[in-house]
Amino acid sequence: MTIAIVGGTGPQGSGIGLRLALAGEEVILGSRDADKARAEADRLTAEHSPEGRLSGTGNAEAAERAETVILAVPYRGHDELVTALAPVLAGKLVISCVNPLSFDKLGPVGAEIPDKSAAEEAARILTASTVAGAFHHLSAVTLHWVDHDLSHEDVLVCGDDTAAKAEVMRLAGKVTGGRAIDVGALRLARHLEPFTAVLISVNKRYKTNASVSLTGIRKE
Amino acid sequence: MTIAIVGGTGPQGSGIGLRLALAGEEVILGSRDADKARAEADRLTAEHSPEGRLSGTGNAEAAERAETVILAVPYRGHDELVTALAPVLAGKLVISCVNPLSFDKLGPVGAEIPDKSAAEEAARILTASTVAGAFHHLSAVTLHWVDHDLSHEDVLVCGDDTAAKAEVMRLAGKVTGGRAIDVGALRLARHLEPFTAVLISVNKRYKTNASVSLTGIRKE
Repeated sequence: MTIAIVGGTGPQGSGIGLRLALAGEEVILGSRDADKARAEADRLTAEHSPEGRLSGTGNAEAAERAETVILAVPYRGHDELVTALAPVLAGKLVISCVNPLSFDKLGPVGAEIPDKSAAEEAARILTASTVAGAFHHLSAVTLHWVDHDLSHEDVLVCGDDTAAKAEVMRLAGKVTGGRAIDVGALRLARHLEPFTAVLISVNKRYKTNASVSLTGIRKE
Repeated sequence: MTIAIVGGTGPQGSGIGLRLALAGEEVILGSRDADKARAEADRLTAEHSPEGRLSGTGNAEAAERAETVILAVPYRGHDELVTALAPVLAGKLVISCVNPLSFDKLGPVGAEIPDKSAAEEAARILTASTVAGAFHHLSAVTLHWVDHDLSHEDVLVCGDDTAAKAEVMRLAGKVTGGRAIDVGALRLARHLEPFTAVLISVNKRYKTNASVSLTGIRKE
């Protein structure tokens, strides 16, 4: 099974792709600039020699060649990009980790968007795909510190398709080595996405790379 | 110093009040029905013999007699209640743990409200008070299990007044025995409050009482 990362040269996308490849998955980084994606895949491969093959190409070709597609793009231009990719995403599992945020002198805050969350926006557009939300709270910094244990961080997964969520949770385990939590309906993405603004604010105050763990759920 | 809990006979309000009294703070539970507040305070006192005095009275009198006031009411009627209490809250620290939520067949979800969060709504009305947000994610159930250790749960605190937040964080330590985290500006309450919908959804799926811990911040 091949996983494409649309926006795979951004820090979060490349970090998730790298962790998946290290865990043995075949990963294609996508970018608007196919050469940039190839260079990033080559760089990560040379540096980390992942067990899974890591390659790079344009966003559309990456999505076309994969069974599962992770959207890891900035929110700006999200609607247009997802609309353009809709034909190649048809029939596939699409995992959104897009965080629509605004920044001003008070710091980060969730952006108000028409569909309330990027994941719901993608689901509205991608009527022939199955959309889930996940990976919003993983730090791009610590994803790239490949020796940094992420297994104490919980990946919160939302979606309306149970089988799709099971696959997302499997991949989440590959990324962090820890657990994923099925938080419920896709629309809860509207609360997961802007919680990233809270984490970024905490990062600045505490000079760290914070993420989330839920208490009260037994570790397996 | 005396702490009033407006809405102190609800499960969350009485649980926070009980934990504060057990930690030695003087607490007044407020309710629309003063007799009900007295009965709840008497019941908790008889059952737990807290070190701090725990009493009950009407919401306005409770707020009047305290230096710090915790708002622990349901969101319905919040605007009117806060407006009515504004004179007795003037000059005081007001901590909102109000969670505006909706429930339908898909489960819980954050309610869309004009001021974006209950804490911001309170701050708009209470121009002579200092408003902070905290305690949104503590489970009313486990607050009442007084032998249940809450010290691994983080109280996320938001506000625009640094001295006020320091006092909120001190009280949070009394409630949980653990740490509080200053997440930043008051407006981040719009992300903290609806995250409770995520926790309630998780509670139903995992049959638990989930709360939040942030990773990446050194435990003291």
